[in-house]
Amino acid sequence: MTMAHTHSAAGRVAFVGAGPGQADLITLRGAQRLAEARVVLVDALVDPALREMAPQARWLHVGKRGYTDSATQQAINALLVRCARETGSGGLVVRLKGGDPSIFGRLEEELQAMAEAGIECEVVPGVTAALAAAASAQRPLTRRGEGRSVSFATAMTATACDSDDPLQAGRHADTEVLYMAGKQLGALARKLIAAGWSPQTPACVTSRAGWPDELRSDHDVATLGRASMLHAGRPTVVVIGAGARPMSTAAQAINTDIPEPQGLGART
Amino acid sequence: MTMAHTHSAAGRVAFVGAGPGQADLITLRGAQRLAEARVVLVDALVDPALREMAPQARWLHVGKRGYTDSATQQAINALLVRCARETGSGGLVVRLKGGDPSIFGRLEEELQAMAEAGIECEVVPGVTAALAAAASAQRPLTRRGEGRSVSFATAMTATACDSDDPLQAGRHADTEVLYMAGKQLGALARKLIAAGWSPQTPACVTSRAGWPDELRSDHDVATLGRASMLHAGRPTVVVIGAGARPMSTAAQAINTDIPEPQGLGART
Repeated sequence: MTMAHTHSAAGRVAFVGAGPGQADLITLRGAQRLAEARVVLVDALVDPALREMAPQARWLHVGKRGYTDSATQQAINALLVRCARETGSGGLVVRLKGGDPSIFGRLEEELQAMAEAGIECEVVPGVTAALAAAASAQRPLTRRGEGRSVSFATAMTATACDSDDPLQAGRHADTEVLYMAGKQLGALARKLIAAGWSPQTPACVTSRAGWPDELRSDHDVATLGRASMLHAGRPTVVVIGAGARPMSTAAQAINTDIPEPQGLGART
Repeated sequence: MTMAHTHSAAGRVAFVGAGPGQADLITLRGAQRLAEARVVLVDALVDPALREMAPQARWLHVGKRGYTDSATQQAINALLVRCARETGSGGLVVRLKGGDPSIFGRLEEELQAMAEAGIECEVVPGVTAALAAAASAQRPLTRRGEGRSVSFATAMTATACDSDDPLQAGRHADTEVLYMAGKQLGALARKLIAAGWSPQTPACVTSRAGWPDELRSDHDVATLGRASMLHAGRPTVVVIGAGARPMSTAAQAINTDIPEPQGLGART
């Protein structure tokens, strides 16, 4: 049977979440898969330092996640299948994706293509951008009492090129996180208010979450548009509601005030 | 000033997401912090293999996350402060939390306590259980077209002990993920239907996501209660809606059919 033949001849594909930014936000398992890989297909946004984890592999850059059009997606699918077949049985192809593959990672299309080609797959999860933004801001996405649910949504729809108004915003949860929202923050603010958010709701904008040059700015929903200039041209995550609120003014003041640790102190 | 004195004498605290299961789902940064730690405060649910990443540290077990009552929480806060002060300037205390600290990790209370004590903090993100469940099931939480938003909520409220009906369920997004939902799946099904989910909506239940003994079962919302027996007494994540759907019957059949790789095949 042709199908069975294809199975035994092809390598495996591991879809690996690289985490949102710096290379050390990848999981140990993800790093291990990179070390085993013969070929790595990578999006434009991942840290070049990840390359040092797989110097033995052939690295192929296949474009930026999120905004990939379907023609590009089909080409990536075909390339993945070709790489797995060329690598052969026992070989590993890593498809490295920024963040986590299961959250706005276009994983579905690629898994489907592998299934149709009879290629064995594994998915290694990663830290998605919202979690990195929450961590560096020290603002938990869930809060006791008032923040019991968190929603991740994308502000731009899949049919962005075809629609007159591709921008989407809703009120799904106590904390709303919008991915790929950087381009039209003023319009987004109007949609959020129309969806039922109070204009005074806290809004925290983070671009390049998890990178050394991460930027964060605080707004409320009504003034969200003012964030556009600061974060222009950078991958942006917008947090609205309970999870956008700083822990407390006191906590903020103390944190900026602390000197770097200088040597070992005495134990009491 | 007492406050300034406290700053210079105390060590730092890193809140580290351990990931949801096996030790290799921690990030490289998390593993690095463990290697630097003098003390590690850990919940009951993390992989004992993480201990090998910090053999130099004193390990303190402080109870299971999620169901921690507020008396226990205050004791943990106080212990964290004491450990940071005893460790002294330049020393590191790791507060290791299952999954990601910013998602149902009770991080808020502990950050606040550190701020009040003038102790410097860092948060290292991790893979939250929903992402691990999605990865091992190979079912992305977001789907092209029909799965554009995903919500994480907890089925049990913070006031579970005080309320007559602490069970909560809503319809927040195209894919709804419920944490801490294992105990009352039958009642949860009725709440989900009342919240607007069709009884035929796919529902995927995963317990011990990310562990070698992970279990997964497929249901629809109406028959969710049947999952209770299989997952009894295990930490459980319930996925409802678009992200619960298997990729395709064909893909499932192929994946179970693939032999293990046996040696290197010829490259074409």
